[in-house]
Amino acid sequence: MEEIKNNVPVTYELIKTCKQTGARLGILHTPHGDVETPTYMCVGTQATVKAILPRDLEEIGAGVVLSNTYHLYLRPGHELVKKAGGLHEFSQWHGPMLTDSGGFQVFSLASMNKIKEDGVEFRSHIDGSRHFFTPEKVMEIEEALGADIAMAFDECAPAGCSYDYTVKAMDRTHRWAERCGKAHTRQDQALFGIIQGGMFGDLRIESTKALTQMDFPGYGIGGLSVGEPKPVMYEMLDTIRPYLPENKPHYLMGVGSPDCLVEGSMRGIDMFDCVMQTRTARNALAMTFEGKKSLKQLQYEEDFRPIEEGCDCYACRHFTRAYIRHLIKANEILAAQLITIHNLRFSYRLMEGIRNAIREDALMDYRNELVLRGTFN
Amino acid sequence: MEEIKNNVPVTYELIKTCKQTGARLGILHTPHGDVETPTYMCVGTQATVKAILPRDLEEIGAGVVLSNTYHLYLRPGHELVKKAGGLHEFSQWHGPMLTDSGGFQVFSLASMNKIKEDGVEFRSHIDGSRHFFTPEKVMEIEEALGADIAMAFDECAPAGCSYDYTVKAMDRTHRWAERCGKAHTRQDQALFGIIQGGMFGDLRIESTKALTQMDFPGYGIGGLSVGEPKPVMYEMLDTIRPYLPENKPHYLMGVGSPDCLVEGSMRGIDMFDCVMQTRTARNALAMTFEGKKSLKQLQYEEDFRPIEEGCDCYACRHFTRAYIRHLIKANEILAAQLITIHNLRFSYRLMEGIRNAIREDALMDYRNELVLRGTFN
Repeated sequence: MEEIKNNVPVTYELIKTCKQTGARLGILHTPHGDVETPTYMCVGTQATVKAILPRDLEEIGAGVVLSNTYHLYLRPGHELVKKAGGLHEFSQWHGPMLTDSGGFQVFSLASMNKIKEDGVEFRSHIDGSRHFFTPEKVMEIEEALGADIAMAFDECAPAGCSYDYTVKAMDRTHRWAERCGKAHTRQDQALFGIIQGGMFGDLRIESTKALTQMDFPGYGIGGLSVGEPKPVMYEMLDTIRPYLPENKPHYLMGVGSPDCLVEGSMRGIDMFDCVMQTRTARNALAMTFEGKKSLKQLQYEEDFRPIEEGCDCYACRHFTRAYIRHLIKANEILAAQLITIHNLRFSYRLMEGIRNAIREDALMDYRNELVLRGTFN
Repeated sequence: MEEIKNNVPVTYELIKTCKQTGARLGILHTPHGDVETPTYMCVGTQATVKAILPRDLEEIGAGVVLSNTYHLYLRPGHELVKKAGGLHEFSQWHGPMLTDSGGFQVFSLASMNKIKEDGVEFRSHIDGSRHFFTPEKVMEIEEALGADIAMAFDECAPAGCSYDYTVKAMDRTHRWAERCGKAHTRQDQALFGIIQGGMFGDLRIESTKALTQMDFPGYGIGGLSVGEPKPVMYEMLDTIRPYLPENKPHYLMGVGSPDCLVEGSMRGIDMFDCVMQTRTARNALAMTFEGKKSLKQLQYEEDFRPIEEGCDCYACRHFTRAYIRHLIKANEILAAQLITIHNLRFSYRLMEGIRNAIREDALMDYRNELVLRGTFN
């Protein structure tokens, strides 16, 4: 596995550990800049974070932007993105980027998927066309996209899977991770492995051991937040924590609600991603430290306060709830634009709060404060 | 009419007249700033220019922003806007604003409208509720909205109207203009009269004379671009030109395609407004000096040039046609955001070109150059 060992364009620097919780404060070094961790990564599925200009993303303090290999492979095609100079140039996000491997999407979005040892056959959710993803093919696509971090191709077994099937899927994921490691050659891109194992603690441990033996520069934790109760997810994180290397970043994939950002950080997670921030924004839902607010509600009709008092985002510096409610009722795109800016900024502010609390060895206190404020409602 | 005479918060300063065409270079002075004319006013129908943040509007050089009395009266209601501190504060556009009177919308959008001497009864296009607009009511609404310029309530007779009906509608418009003048009291807002008269030159002259006798601080020319051939519209403009006061701004309502911006300027028009720029943007149509481009076309798939070479807008400084085409195909809101920024900036650049040409007494040359470049295609 020398290819992987030599290829460390992305490194993790541990600054300190919270004495109260064990949460990690660190820095993720990437070819496109450093990011303080724990960090929330916003999602730009189709090479755009929905409804926000890249310069506005930059203004609110975005770190890593995540894009989707499955989507970009289907549309516009990874070859086109490569011709455009890669994802950074194509989408004009000049900070760090990460592409997921498409594993999750192949199983959740595509239809008629058939899993073979070599890879997965599936039909496009756009036009029904047939495609075949192997670890090698996915590496080719992710290298063409050219994010700072590529994720290994994994099999994300569905929620409620049997123990026997979870073992099979996990073992295959390990073989695929090894093949990804061999196929991956791009020296300015880090390849992260993905830990699977369903809701079974022993399998999660086995998967963590197997992956860490392959010595990737970072580890995704996949297959969580797929319908299980949150305590089960937290238990899985607690279970694998002792087996995760301290000198590598730990990335909890597809998870990023306010409570999970805090609880995950308390369990040693450094990176999160979630579409909730941008998706709910387009459904008129604002995220605040006092919990979610459905801004279309009548109670905001004559409410001339900002979405969230004390928030420093463009939306809160200028506009009132009454105005944004008007935009929502009138089906104006500007509503989605403004709430997207706010929800993302809220999440970055929450992460700043988490990092400050770690710095002060007080993340549990901060968590309890947020519970009292209703942040997780 | 002393109320109107004393109330001149908006004035027009004629800088020079193009020797080649008679076009006017001037400055419109308003309580919220000066605007060089001829000027294109972008349309923020529902208190937002669709898909663009006010700060981005400011960056691209927007002057006056127009909003719609009819829409804002129905939703969110003028009383709410008044409570919010007026339209500037509500929408956070701190430059000049203009509200149209709702006359055009009552006749084009609302249903079951019944015209009486006192006003117009109509049903809301949103929920079918019944409403009654009189000149006095419209003044109350426009004063509550608080734009720099309010337009008088007029009857916009449909295209292809008989001479007899056009006379009736025009005479009523004159009586309503007089009532508007009496009802209008806000001293920091200018009330402009609206010239009607359909496609009949003698009526247009009569209307211009009647309105200018009332001595408004500016004049809208309504009821054009309602389906008639453009030469007919130009003829109407040529016909009334000698009767329009040189010391007042001339506003051609609802007109703003590139050819009309130039041809209108050549006929002494100082202000234009049009939804085309923002509406076509949401339909993937970019406006350029080489004509319109439908960016969803296959020819742009691997076109890594900006929408328009030489354009200084944010979209053109950063993004390629290939990327924007991808956004369009993927139904991403960012496509509308970027093309909106570009189309508006294109129009402001076109107006800069027109003003520069007037300055050099060469607007006809500029027009001919644009014809050759395909700007009007």
